[in-house]
Amino acid sequence: MTPTVRIEPRSGVAFRLAEGQRLTVIDPQGSQVADLLAFAQGDVREAISNGRTLDYEESIRLTTGNRLWSNRSRAMLEIEADTVGCHDFLLTPCSIDTFLHFYPDKPLHRGCFGNLAEALAPYGVAEDAIPVAFNVFMNVPIGPDGRISVLPPTSRPGDSITFLALMDLVIGLTACSAYASNGGSFKPIDYRIE
Amino acid sequence: MTPTVRIEPRSGVAFRLAEGQRLTVIDPQGSQVADLLAFAQGDVREAISNGRTLDYEESIRLTTGNRLWSNRSRAMLEIEADTVGCHDFLLTPCSIDTFLHFYPDKPLHRGCFGNLAEALAPYGVAEDAIPVAFNVFMNVPIGPDGRISVLPPTSRPGDSITFLALMDLVIGLTACSAYASNGGSFKPIDYRIE
Repeated sequence: MTPTVRIEPRSGVAFRLAEGQRLTVIDPQGSQVADLLAFAQGDVREAISNGRTLDYEESIRLTTGNRLWSNRSRAMLEIEADTVGCHDFLLTPCSIDTFLHFYPDKPLHRGCFGNLAEALAPYGVAEDAIPVAFNVFMNVPIGPDGRISVLPPTSRPGDSITFLALMDLVIGLTACSAYASNGGSFKPIDYRIE
Repeated sequence: MTPTVRIEPRSGVAFRLAEGQRLTVIDPQGSQVADLLAFAQGDVREAISNGRTLDYEESIRLTTGNRLWSNRSRAMLEIEADTVGCHDFLLTPCSIDTFLHFYPDKPLHRGCFGNLAEALAPYGVAEDAIPVAFNVFMNVPIGPDGRISVLPPTSRPGDSITFLALMDLVIGLTACSAYASNGGSFKPIDYRIE
């Protein structure tokens, strides 16, 4: 059993994930979100793409059996297991700008965007190249009129999702910093590579 | 009255749109899609972002009064008029890869992606930097289970949408090349700048 690594509240990490390795993202305390990004190791201009993924998977409710695709139409990750089944792939990582927009009275924070930008910079990923993340455990229902809501995640302590890497990747991963996405609390995220 | 310009079937164009100018996109024959991209003139690394837009507009059904935002959280375009009210901001421009995926038996075509890449190259936009387009008139209902469908557009001949430029932009615009998005026919798109 490989060790489980903790991402502290409101922080983020980046690491390499080789083809064939499995990444399990765990919500240790429940009701927390993790923003996940993926880039091709060989050329980080190839990045995870919500548009390509929604095109090919033909669903916005991605879970076991679905794959996450790159902007070059290659499958990057496959969801192999998922005890939650509720994730978001529409919204961008929270940032100083989203904090100013949604929480003008609250203390500013660089958010998942800032955390991802710092963690991914050593891999050559520029801020402007950070796309929409696959927001693990994020609960974003869409009403019949198209309205988007952000509700607390339905994940319970110990819930997890496992991704199989289909190519050599650089992964960015956070414990989310926004107020709405995790019910107003800031919690850690755990992950394991196998 | 400024002249109306025609985009021939399965082709695309790019042009500058200054802050304060209005772009009207017209469906001259009905049931056709136009993929629209926007980049900041001063730095094309600033690009239209479906994620930021869905974040700030809090809806996937964008119409009159909604704004389209950049990856740097600046409002690029405002929808000032819209006789259709049905557009998509989830799916990527059709491409050789989507043709291979969805229409393996049909002749290959570079699609809106290829058309946009060629039209935008003189402005310094690389292929990998082409994001999800705002797909004007595209009819993409989402079922209660999250399933995405692509249906023929509801636009009738002469229907239009008008965007006000909120900053100096480079615009990419196509007459869509895919089979599903326009009911199997390939038609032109017209536009006017005022």
